[in-house]
Amino acid sequence: MYTMDEKLRADVLTAALPYIQKYTGRVVVVKYGGNAMVNPNLKQAVMSDMVLLALVGIKVVLVHGGGPEISGMLKRLDIESKFVNGLRCTDEQTAQVVQMVLAGKTNKDLVSLIGVCGGKAIGLCGIDGRMIQARKMDGPKELGYVGEITAIDPAPILNALHDGYIPVIATCGIGEDGMTYNINADTAAAGIASALKAENFITLTDIRGLMRDVNDENSFIAHVDTDQVDQLIAEGVIAGGMIPKIKGLQKVVREGVGRAVMIDGRIPHSILLEMFSDEGIGTLIEKPKEATK
Amino acid sequence: MYTMDEKLRADVLTAALPYIQKYTGRVVVVKYGGNAMVNPNLKQAVMSDMVLLALVGIKVVLVHGGGPEISGMLKRLDIESKFVNGLRCTDEQTAQVVQMVLAGKTNKDLVSLIGVCGGKAIGLCGIDGRMIQARKMDGPKELGYVGEITAIDPAPILNALHDGYIPVIATCGIGEDGMTYNINADTAAAGIASALKAENFITLTDIRGLMRDVNDENSFIAHVDTDQVDQLIAEGVIAGGMIPKIKGLQKVVREGVGRAVMIDGRIPHSILLEMFSDEGIGTLIEKPKEATK
Amino acid sequence: MYTMDEKLRADVLTAALPYIQKYTGRVVVVKYGGNAMVNPNLKQAVMSDMVLLALVGIKVVLVHGGGPEISGMLKRLDIESKFVNGLRCTDEQTAQVVQMVLAGKTNKDLVSLIGVCGGKAIGLCGIDGRMIQARKMDGPKELGYVGEITAIDPAPILNALHDGYIPVIATCGIGEDGMTYNINADTAAAGIASALKAENFITLTDIRGLMRDVNDENSFIAHVDTDQVDQLIAEGVIAGGMIPKIKGLQKVVREGVGRAVMIDGRIPHSILLEMFSDEGIGTLIEKPKEATK
Amino acid sequence: MYTMDEKLRADVLTAALPYIQKYTGRVVVVKYGGNAMVNPNLKQAVMSDMVLLALVGIKVVLVHGGGPEISGMLKRLDIESKFVNGLRCTDEQTAQVVQMVLAGKTNKDLVSLIGVCGGKAIGLCGIDGRMIQARKMDGPKELGYVGEITAIDPAPILNALHDGYIPVIATCGIGEDGMTYNINADTAAAGIASALKAENFITLTDIRGLMRDVNDENSFIAHVDTDQVDQLIAEGVIAGGMIPKIKGLQKVVREGVGRAVMIDGRIPHSILLEMFSDEGIGTLIEKPKEATK
Amino acid sequence: MYTMDEKLRADVLTAALPYIQKYTGRVVVVKYGGNAMVNPNLKQAVMSDMVLLALVGIKVVLVHGGGPEISGMLKRLDIESKFVNGLRCTDEQTAQVVQMVLAGKTNKDLVSLIGVCGGKAIGLCGIDGRMIQARKMDGPKELGYVGEITAIDPAPILNALHDGYIPVIATCGIGEDGMTYNINADTAAAGIASALKAENFITLTDIRGLMRDVNDENSFIAHVDTDQVDQLIAEGVIAGGMIPKIKGLQKVVREGVGRAVMIDGRIPHSILLEMFSDEGIGTLIEKPKEATK
Amino acid sequence: MYTMDEKLRADVLTAALPYIQKYTGRVVVVKYGGNAMVNPNLKQAVMSDMVLLALVGIKVVLVHGGGPEISGMLKRLDIESKFVNGLRCTDEQTAQVVQMVLAGKTNKDLVSLIGVCGGKAIGLCGIDGRMIQARKMDGPKELGYVGEITAIDPAPILNALHDGYIPVIATCGIGEDGMTYNINADTAAAGIASALKAENFITLTDIRGLMRDVNDENSFIAHVDTDQVDQLIAEGVIAGGMIPKIKGLQKVVREGVGRAVMIDGRIPHSILLEMFSDEGIGTLIEKPKEATK
Repeated sequence: MYTMDEKLRADVLTAALPYIQKYTGRVVVVKYGGNAMVNPNLKQAVMSDMVLLALVGIKVVLVHGGGPEISGMLKRLDIESKFVNGLRCTDEQTAQVVQMVLAGKTNKDLVSLIGVCGGKAIGLCGIDGRMIQARKMDGPKELGYVGEITAIDPAPILNALHDGYIPVIATCGIGEDGMTYNINADTAAAGIASALKAENFITLTDIRGLMRDVNDENSFIAHVDTDQVDQLIAEGVIAGGMIPKIKGLQKVVREGVGRAVMIDGRIPHSILLEMFSDEGIGTLIEKPKEATK
Repeated sequence: MYTMDEKLRADVLTAALPYIQKYTGRVVVVKYGGNAMVNPNLKQAVMSDMVLLALVGIKVVLVHGGGPEISGMLKRLDIESKFVNGLRCTDEQTAQVVQMVLAGKTNKDLVSLIGVCGGKAIGLCGIDGRMIQARKMDGPKELGYVGEITAIDPAPILNALHDGYIPVIATCGIGEDGMTYNINADTAAAGIASALKAENFITLTDIRGLMRDVNDENSFIAHVDTDQVDQLIAEGVIAGGMIPKIKGLQKVVREGVGRAVMIDGRIPHSILLEMFSDEGIGTLIEKPKEATK
Repeated sequence: MYTMDEKLRADVLTAALPYIQKYTGRVVVVKYGGNAMVNPNLKQAVMSDMVLLALVGIKVVLVHGGGPEISGMLKRLDIESKFVNGLRCTDEQTAQVVQMVLAGKTNKDLVSLIGVCGGKAIGLCGIDGRMIQARKMDGPKELGYVGEITAIDPAPILNALHDGYIPVIATCGIGEDGMTYNINADTAAAGIASALKAENFITLTDIRGLMRDVNDENSFIAHVDTDQVDQLIAEGVIAGGMIPKIKGLQKVVREGVGRAVMIDGRIPHSILLEMFSDEGIGTLIEKPKEATK
Repeated sequence: MYTMDEKLRADVLTAALPYIQKYTGRVVVVKYGGNAMVNPNLKQAVMSDMVLLALVGIKVVLVHGGGPEISGMLKRLDIESKFVNGLRCTDEQTAQVVQMVLAGKTNKDLVSLIGVCGGKAIGLCGIDGRMIQARKMDGPKELGYVGEITAIDPAPILNALHDGYIPVIATCGIGEDGMTYNINADTAAAGIASALKAENFITLTDIRGLMRDVNDENSFIAHVDTDQVDQLIAEGVIAGGMIPKIKGLQKVVREGVGRAVMIDGRIPHSILLEMFSDEGIGTLIEKPKEATK
Repeated sequence: MYTMDEKLRADVLTAALPYIQKYTGRVVVVKYGGNAMVNPNLKQAVMSDMVLLALVGIKVVLVHGGGPEISGMLKRLDIESKFVNGLRCTDEQTAQVVQMVLAGKTNKDLVSLIGVCGGKAIGLCGIDGRMIQARKMDGPKELGYVGEITAIDPAPILNALHDGYIPVIATCGIGEDGMTYNINADTAAAGIASALKAENFITLTDIRGLMRDVNDENSFIAHVDTDQVDQLIAEGVIAGGMIPKIKGLQKVVREGVGRAVMIDGRIPHSILLEMFSDEGIGTLIEKPKEATK
Repeated sequence: MYTMDEKLRADVLTAALPYIQKYTGRVVVVKYGGNAMVNPNLKQAVMSDMVLLALVGIKVVLVHGGGPEISGMLKRLDIESKFVNGLRCTDEQTAQVVQMVLAGKTNKDLVSLIGVCGGKAIGLCGIDGRMIQARKMDGPKELGYVGEITAIDPAPILNALHDGYIPVIATCGIGEDGMTYNINADTAAAGIASALKAENFITLTDIRGLMRDVNDENSFIAHVDTDQVDQLIAEGVIAGGMIPKIKGLQKVVREGVGRAVMIDGRIPHSILLEMFSDEGIGTLIEKPKEATK
C-alpha cells in the first residue's frame, strides 16, 4: 500500500503544525551571510527555506551584505582595500562598487534563486524609497562613506510583503546628500527587524553558537536572556568578535523584537530546524522570563 | 550537534513545498465518513490534517454525514430504522433525530476536536442561511423526508473561509416549507464542491480505491479520466456500490471541480499523503488530458 | 379610493419612524425562553419580530437555552435528571445530550423558522469558533460539566451580522480540554450582550414584569435604575427567583449595555411593542439619570 | 396591560415586512410635484415617507421641479411668463430665475424639511458634477434655454446614497457652454430612474390614476403593461395630457426600470401605501408578464 | 527648434515643483469674496486656480458668501435692507431670499464656471446634511435670523473631496427648528477650515494686506505670528474692520489650521501666486516659530 | 507689488492646466537613454520632470538601459566587447556584468537622483518578481545570453505606482533557468508600455526627430500615423537605424498604447515640453484618425 516514507512524511508535517501556528502571519527577519552565502548547496537550501516559510504564511524578509563578492570586485578593479578598526575605508569610488555589487549582483542573484525555488521575490536596497537613511559615521576621515543609520522607513518592505513577495534587502544606505553609504549588514538587519517589530530575528553565522568552551561541543549555551549578557561578557564567556554580535541581538530584543537567534548557517536548512522545533539549534536571546509577562 | 531526525524533518518539509504551492489559496472539499469517523485516532489525524492544510493557506471545507451515530440514537429512542433501495425511510420524527444528531452532536464534536488540534472551525448545517435547499425525492411515499437538492448557496461557507475559520458542514437540507430533509452526504459534499468550484474534492472511504481485481493489491487503478468511467462500468471493473460513487466524482469534475479523489480513510493522515505527493494514494478522477486546456 | 385600513397602516408605520431611527445600526440582544419558546404562535411572532428588526437595520442577536426539550430528550433516553441548588447535575452523557438538543434541535429549528418568516439566520453555539469558553463551576462534584464562562469571543457573531445574517446562539460552552459545558442561558446571553456592547438587552419572561404586589396589576414597576436595585431587594420587592434575574440585568448595564429590559413573552410581538413605543411594555433597568451624562 | 393600539401597531408593522423585504437595498426614484408639493401637510407626509423608506434600507431619490414657486418669483420680478406648446419660453434672465428658485429655494427647503423629519439629505441640481447635461431643444427660437437632456451622470446621486444621504435633485440642466437649461421635471426624473436602473419609479400626480371613465371611480385601471399602452391611446382611454406622462413611464420601463407607477399625491403617505401593499394605490406600468423572465 | 517660451514654460513648471510637493494631499480652504467675485475675468481666474490646485492633488474647498447679488435681489423684490452693527436684519422673508440667492444663484454659477474650466464641482450649502448648524445670534431682536454657528459637520465636504469633486460651499446655516440662518461668510469659512484641520486658509480681500501705513506700499507686513496680533491692535496697526478679520485668522490658526493668509483678490491668479512662491503675496498669520516645534 | 515674473508664473501654470487634465491618472512610460543619460544637467532635468509629472497625478514609469557604463565596466574588467549584427555577444560573465551595472549602478543612481529632486522611487529590474521573462534570442551561438522577451508581468510596476513610488526599471531579463538575459532597452520599454496599456510612450533620443532631409530643420515631421510608416520606409524617409525605432513605436501603438513619441533628449525638460503643449516637440506616432474611434 503506502510506503514507510509516506507515513514518515505525514508525521513530520503533522509535527511541524504547532510551529507553523506560532509564526504564521508574523514577520521573521533573516540576516544572511557567511558560508551559507558562498556554498551553492547551502545557498539553495536557505532560499528554499525562505520560500517554504513564505508559503505557510510567515512574512520572511531576507537581509544580506555583500560578503566576498565586494572584495573580489574591488580587487579585479585594482582598488585597494584598506581597513580601520575592522571597517572598510570607503572612498567615493569604493562606495560605488559596494552599491553596484551589493544591489546589482548579490541582491538580484538571490532574487533569481528564490524564483528558481518557486518563490516570488523583490530585491531592494536602502536607496529604494530612501529606506535606509544614513550619514557619515564618527571616526577617522579615511573611513569616508562608512555610514551610520539615521532612520529606517519600512514602507517598501511592508509593501512588498503585502503584495505577496519575499523582500530581499541589500544594506547600502542613502544620505541626505544623495550619496551612497556603506552600512554594516548586521546593524542594518537589526535595524530593519526593530522597525518591523519582527517576531523573530535570525542571524546565520559560521559557528555553532555561543559556547563556554569553544573546544567543547557540550558547553553550548542554548539560551541567554537579555539581562545575562553583560555578566557573560564580564565572565569572558562572550568575548572578542562575539561581543558586538551578541550586544546587537540584545539591543534588538530590548527594542521590541520577540526573539533573536544566532544559528549555524553551515547546517543545511538551519532556518527550518531552528523555527520548527522546540529547542531550536542556535543560541537564543530573549527577554528575561519574568519580564515577558 | 543536530540529530538525524532533524535533518529528516527539514528534508520532508522541503519536499512538501511544491505541493503546498499547488494548493495554497485554493478550495479543497473533504467528504468525511466511514472508519475515519469512528476510530478516535484516525478522527484526530483527519482533524489535524485539516488544521495543517488551513495553516498553509489552503481553504479546506469538511463535509460530513452522521454515520453510525444516527442509527444509534434512533435505536436508543426506539424508532425503527427502515430502508428502501438503501435509503433510510425518514418520517418527521426521524428527520428531527437526523437533524439533531448531525447538526448538534457529530458536527459540534468535530468543531470541538479541530479546536483541540489548534484550529478554529465554524459548524454549519444546510439549514443555516438556507444553504442546502431541498425537496422530497421522487420515490415511494414511505421515504418521507429523504431530500434531493434543489439549490446550494455557498455564501455561509465562503464567509466562514473569509473570516479564517474551517467550515464544518452537516448535510441536512431545508425545504421551501421549512421542513428538514435527510440528504445523502456524498451527494451534498459533491454539490458543495461544485458550488465552490473546488480545486480538489477528496472522499474518504473504507477501501483502498478502485481495483480491477479486489483481491489483488497490484490491480489498483490510480487514475481514471471522466471519459473512461462509462466503459469501466460496462467492463464491470466499476460495479455495485462503486457505480454511484464514481459517477458522482465524474459529475463533479464535469461541473468544474479540478480533480476528485477517493482515498483510503483507514490510513492515518491519508489526506496529507494524497495532497503532498505526486502519485497520491487514491484513485483520481480527472478530465481527459486533451480536454484540460 | 383607499380604505381606512390603509390610512391606518401608513399612520402606524410613520409612528414607528423615531423608534427605528433610535435603534438602526445598533446591536440588540434578545434572550429567548419561557412560554414564547413553547407556544407555536408566540414562537412565530418572535421570529417575525426578529426578521422585521433586522430588515429595518437593527443588528439583532437571538440567544436561547433549551427549555423543556432537553428534559424531554433526557427522559426519552432514560437519563435521570438531578438538580443541586437549581442547577442540573451534568455528567458527560448529559452534557452530550444538552449539546445535541440545544445546538442540533432547538437552534436549527429557530434558524429554520426565521427562514420561513423571510429572514436569513446562522445558528451557532458556544463551541463554534470557541465563542463561549468555560470551565467547571465551583461547587459540589456531582454538578459535573456545569460551566462558568471564562471568556467570550464575539467574532463569530459579529461576522454573521456583518454578512447580513441574524445570529441565533445556543449557549453551550467549550472548555480548554475540548469538553462541552452546560451554561446558564441567562448568564450567557448577558455575557454576549456585554461583549457586544449592545444598545438593548431584552429578556423574554413568563411574567408581566417587576411588581410591588404580584396580585395587583397596578403595582407594575416600569423603570428601575441600577442604583435602586439593591434597595428594592432589601425592601423585598425584588425577591426569590427575581433576584438573580434583576441582578444580571443590573450587571449588564453596569458593563456598558445601554439598557436592559425584562418583558412579558406571553404577549404576541412583545419585542416590537417594547422597542417601538415610548413607554415600552416591560421593566427597564437603566443607569441612573445623573450618571448617563 | 397593553392597549388595543399597541397590538394593532405590531400587526401593521408585521404586515409591512414582506414589502420592506422586496425593496430593501434597491433604488426607488420619486418624482415629486403637484398638490403634494404645495399643501404643507402633504409635503411633510412625503418627506416623512422618504425618511422612513431610507431607514428601512431603501435607496430613495427625490426628484422635483419648481412648481408654482418659479412662476411666483418671475411675477414678483416683473418677468413675463410666456408659453409655447406648453413650454415656458426661457430667455437667459428666466433661466437664471429658474435655477435660483429651483436649486436655492425649493431644493434646499425640501432638504431642510427632511432634516426636521429626522433624515439626512443632500440637495443637488443638474449643474452639480455636470449631472444633467443638456442642449437647446429643437423648436421655435423663443423657447430659448428650454433644454433636452444629452447625458446623465448618476455619480453624484450614487455617492450621496453611498454616504447615507437622501439625494434631493432639482432638475435644471447644464450645457457644454456652461449655460443653465430649463428641463422638464418629469423627463429628468425618468432619465435619472433609467440611469440608476431603479427598481421603482413613482410619480406623484393630482389625479386618482388612469381611468376608463374619469367620472367613474370604479373604472380605475390599476395595471397596464407596456405593450398595451399604444392600444389604450388608440382607444382614447389614454388621452390629452396623460399621453406624454404614460408614454414616459412606458419608456422608463422599457429602459430597464423595474416598474413605474403614477399615484395620487393628494392622499397622505401615498408613497408608503403604494409600496407597502400588494395592490398598491396607483396605476402601475410594467413589462408584459411573459416578458419578465 | 523650440522657442524661448517653451523653455520658460518648463522652467516655471519646474520651479513650482517644491510648492506642489508641500501642499499635495492637504486641505486648502479658500474664502472667496470681494472684487474677485464681481469682476468676470478675476472670477474665471479664481476658478481656473481652483481646478489647477485640485489637479495637482490639493484638496481645495471654496467657501463663498453672496456678495452684492443678495442686495440686488432684495432690492428687485422691494424688500428693505436694514443693518444693525453692520449685520443685515434678517426677517423670515429676507432669510429665504438669502438662501435662494446664495445656494441657488451664486453657488451654482460658481459650480458651473468650474465646469467650464474643466473641473468637477459639487455645490452645497449649510443646510445640506445639516452641515452648518446655527441658532439666533445674541443681539437686538430685529436681527432676526442672523445666526451664530453651533456646530459644523464636515462629512459632506469630505465626501465630495473623496469622490473627486471640488466642494463649493454657500454659507447659510440651519437651525434645530429647520429655519435657515444668515451666517457671516468669513466666520463660516473659518469654522470650516478649523473643522477640516486645513493646511492653509486663504481669504481673498480687496486690499493689499496688512500695512503699517495704508498709504505706503513699502510698509506692507508679510508675516504676523498669532502672539503678535493683540499688540498690533494695541499699537493701532490693526484697526477698524481689520480687527475682526485678523482676529478670525488668529483664532483659526490657534484651532489647528496650519497657516492663514489674507491676499489681494484683485490680482489675477493671486491664489497660485500665494501658494506657489516662497514669500507669497499676502499677509500670513502663523503660529509663533518657537511654538511650531 | 508683485513682479512680472510672478504674473508670468501664474500664466504658465494656468496654461499647463489642460495638459495636466489630459494625463492625470494615466500611465506614461519614458524610455530614457542617450545623451540625456550622460550629461549631468540633462539627467537632473529629466529626473525633475519625472517628479513633477508624478506630483500632478501622472503615473510615470522610467525605463532605462545601461548606456556607456556597461562598456566602461567591461573594459575595466578586461572583458572583450564583441558585437554581431549590432548586438553585444553576451557570455555568462558578460551577462553578470550587465546585470550588476544595470541593476546596481545605473538603476540605483537614478533612484537616488529622484530622491534628491524630492521624489520617491523604487528601482527594479526584470528579475524582480520575474517581471521580464526571456529566452535566448534566435541567432548565432556566440550571442549567448542576448534575450528575447517571452512575457512581461507588470504587477511589480503597478504595485510601486499604487504605493506612490516612481518605478525605475532596469531592463535585464530572467530565464526559466534562472539565468540573466541581456535585453534591448527599447524593446523592453515598448513591451512594458504595452503591458501597462500606457497613454503615452516617450522615447528620449539624441536627434531632433524624424526628418525628410536630415540637413534641413524645416523638413521635420511632427506626426506620422501607424498606417503611413511602411510607405515612409519605402520612400526612404525612414531609413537606417530609424527603421527599427519607428517600427517599434508603430507596434506599441497598434498594441493599444495611446501615442508614442520620439523626442530630443538633448533639450532640457524635453519631457515637460512634449507633454505640456499642443504641438509637442517630437515626432508623434498615433493611430490613423479614422481608426481612433
